[in-house]
Amino acid sequence: MTVATPAPTADFTGSPARVLVCRGCGTEYPLAAQHACWECFGPLEIGYDPAALAQVTREQIAAGPPNIWRYAGLLPAGLDPADRVSLDPGFTPLVRADALAAELGLRAPVWVKDDSANPTHSFKDRVVSVALTAAKRLGFTRFACASTGNLANSVAAHAARAGVPSMVFIPADLEAGKVVTTAVYGGDLVAIDGSYDDVNRLCSELVETEEFEDTAFVNVNVRPYYAEGSRTLGFEVAEQLGWRIPEQVVIPMASGELLTKIDKAFSELVEAGLVEPPAGGWRVFGAQSAGCNPIVTALAAGVDEVTPVKPTGIAKSLNIGDPAAGPYALAAVRRTGGWMAEADDDEIREGIRALARTTGIFAETAGGVTVAALRTLVKEGRLDPAAETVVFNTGDGLKTLDAVAGLVGPTYRVKPSLKGLRAAGVMG
Amino acid sequence: MTVATPAPTADFTGSPARVLVCRGCGTEYPLAAQHACWECFGPLEIGYDPAALAQVTREQIAAGPPNIWRYAGLLPAGLDPADRVSLDPGFTPLVRADALAAELGLRAPVWVKDDSANPTHSFKDRVVSVALTAAKRLGFTRFACASTGNLANSVAAHAARAGVPSMVFIPADLEAGKVVTTAVYGGDLVAIDGSYDDVNRLCSELVETEEFEDTAFVNVNVRPYYAEGSRTLGFEVAEQLGWRIPEQVVIPMASGELLTKIDKAFSELVEAGLVEPPAGGWRVFGAQSAGCNPIVTALAAGVDEVTPVKPTGIAKSLNIGDPAAGPYALAAVRRTGGWMAEADDDEIREGIRALARTTGIFAETAGGVTVAALRTLVKEGRLDPAAETVVFNTGDGLKTLDAVAGLVGPTYRVKPSLKGLRAAGVMG
Ligand SMILES: Cc1ncc(COP(=O)(O)O)c(C=O)c1O
Ligand SMILES: Cc1ncc(COP(=O)(O)O)c(C=O)c1O
Ligand SMILES: [Zn+2]
Ligand SMILES: [Zn+2]
Repeated sequence: MTVATPAPTADFTGSPARVLVCRGCGTEYPLAAQHACWECFGPLEIGYDPAALAQVTREQIAAGPPNIWRYAGLLPAGLDPADRVSLDPGFTPLVRADALAAELGLRAPVWVKDDSANPTHSFKDRVVSVALTAAKRLGFTRFACASTGNLANSVAAHAARAGVPSMVFIPADLEAGKVVTTAVYGGDLVAIDGSYDDVNRLCSELVETEEFEDTAFVNVNVRPYYAEGSRTLGFEVAEQLGWRIPEQVVIPMASGELLTKIDKAFSELVEAGLVEPPAGGWRVFGAQSAGCNPIVTALAAGVDEVTPVKPTGIAKSLNIGDPAAGPYALAAVRRTGGWMAEADDDEIREGIRALARTTGIFAETAGGVTVAALRTLVKEGRLDPAAETVVFNTGDGLKTLDAVAGLVGPTYRVKPSLKGLRAAGVMG
Repeated sequence: MTVATPAPTADFTGSPARVLVCRGCGTEYPLAAQHACWECFGPLEIGYDPAALAQVTREQIAAGPPNIWRYAGLLPAGLDPADRVSLDPGFTPLVRADALAAELGLRAPVWVKDDSANPTHSFKDRVVSVALTAAKRLGFTRFACASTGNLANSVAAHAARAGVPSMVFIPADLEAGKVVTTAVYGGDLVAIDGSYDDVNRLCSELVETEEFEDTAFVNVNVRPYYAEGSRTLGFEVAEQLGWRIPEQVVIPMASGELLTKIDKAFSELVEAGLVEPPAGGWRVFGAQSAGCNPIVTALAAGVDEVTPVKPTGIAKSLNIGDPAAGPYALAAVRRTGGWMAEADDDEIREGIRALARTTGIFAETAGGVTVAALRTLVKEGRLDPAAETVVFNTGDGLKTLDAVAGLVGPTYRVKPSLKGLRAAGVMG
């Protein structure tokens, strides 16, 4: 296991990050390329100096660039623009969705945080920018990842921009929209005959080999830094609401990491004195597809362990059958009084279409999962229709065209003449 | 012709727009839904009050939102946020492209203005936001367009966001990435068995019918407002360079409108006192595909008239065989001492790949045309390799995946084991 290899360390002076801390037993480690605890094998995350976080002001943030680096004072790396390895993602639109709220029966404001607006059109640009900025500081000279698709796009594009070699690992059966969009950047792309979980396992072995000593796997050996990038979604939502935390958030889950980090971001904003929490606190809701629902199943069963599944279904970007952060996602949902829901493939397609029709946002399958889950959570009385809600669209419909290609198309097909148009009924 | 119908007018008080003025004979008309001159049938464009434009300051602009509306004081409509029909496009990245410059043999800075970052991933969101904001003020209650693809996506998405019905007209043979991405928003989509030029002709007839009296065709009856939206690309480039105009710009052409409006934007910035022109002025370069090169052909032949062609080739978004603004594009290129180049399908594909490899930006075929044209212009000595150059990427590679899908893909395909990786050569 990872614990045997001495991990590269680096000087993170100036950053608010102080240590790596075990999510399991609390043991602390110096800031290095290490992701698992030597005591309990638990995952590590970044521990910050609370005083450093508390020094960040709204004014400093507002004076920053319109991307994730406006929150550099709250991130483990990237305070100096010259250090960044980044496509400068973030500060994506927060769109008021009144028509969606009406269709789903919500009476309070509903907002869509639209992360399809990022450079490679998913929220993964956030985590990759932070991971690779830290990786560069840690001395790595090649970038890699195990990916369900979006991460692959983002790592390959970041590496091309930075002029650094990359090697990206994906399951061989990914959507064309994700394979081409990774390969076009010219790095190495390794298609594995297996599931994402196979790919991930393989990458965990690779980081231990001499041949990959120089390689940062964004979601393996530099995962603690990577995961922190997702917090910017929470920071942005709060800032875009005028420094308020919404009462309810609905978040798609694969590894479950994104959900835990948005929740963590809200807590940190409160602790840093940047926002007041809503009177009744915030409630975190999770969404998975019916084809890959291990975290939802654990919640419904009232257990803490997440039993791995073999994923199926069209929401490939969420198809992680053995979700590393599943237990932490469960804990966040339970602690805040939220809930989870799943969506089958037909519900996912309808979720994509409902979002497009009512907001003009075309989401990938992961966004369809989230909108469908919102519908179910309202219907089942789990989510309060009278409380303000933010739904996260984390990816772009252009990458998963096949999901809806059979369902939508021209409403008329006609010869090029007014007569043709009249005959077809176009004139009303 | 259009001239027979009394056109809807509206109160544009507060906007710097003063009149519609004929690009042919200079005749002025009140601000209305009119696009052709009653005297000479020439196209109309917006005439501004120079004093109003001169009142806009850099500070006002900097205090505005990070989208096109920061330039509302320079646009015909949208000064009041409540009036806007918009996905809030714009303020897209201007990316320094040193590796691209090195590959193409340029010695001065090269920048890519990346408009794939817009909400529906092309520069068309800019023109549509301005056109529909004006259209609403003019009292229209349905939105429409004739499109080569990107405009279709944008109009359908804007209409969905605004909750207004839409009817979009496209040639039946468009890329799936553009058909699905229009249809998903739920408006009417009319596929015409013909070329874009057929579609456009049909829409010019439709605006004259009673059944379409309520309908704003963004690039027909409200075209003067529409075209103005492209100027924001020029404004942004100047602002992002620290209020400087680059010495050279390379711009893709379909109707030729975009090129003329970026040139116009630079002139207006100078007139309004917002920037100094470069010492030797700026030079405007145009790019078309070899399959649709009527403007390039006219320039090479030294003539003013553009002879229509029947378009072929993979750069479908640029396939306008009878370009409305062709003569004005020619005039701008000649006036500034620029030039034009064309790119065949293989060069387009290589242009896409070169941009992706060197910058991490994945462009659609139109972007491939522009990068390939840049390469040719340098090679032929038309473009000065020692002068600062901005290249416009106007669309997203995800919409034209087929262009490169046959050329790029996994570099390795292996079984999920270290042994498999070693056998395949992944370990080096
Ligand atoms: C579009 C999209 N949304 C959500 C997720 C979930 O992220 P996490 O693994 O952090 O739960 C992913 C993960 O790949 C994704 O691609
Ligand atoms: C991606 C893209 N680039 C450039 C253009 C050219 O625009 P214009 O017709 O203004 O020349 C278009 C037109 O459809 C386009 O879709
Ligand atoms: Zn531990
Ligand atoms: Zn005239």
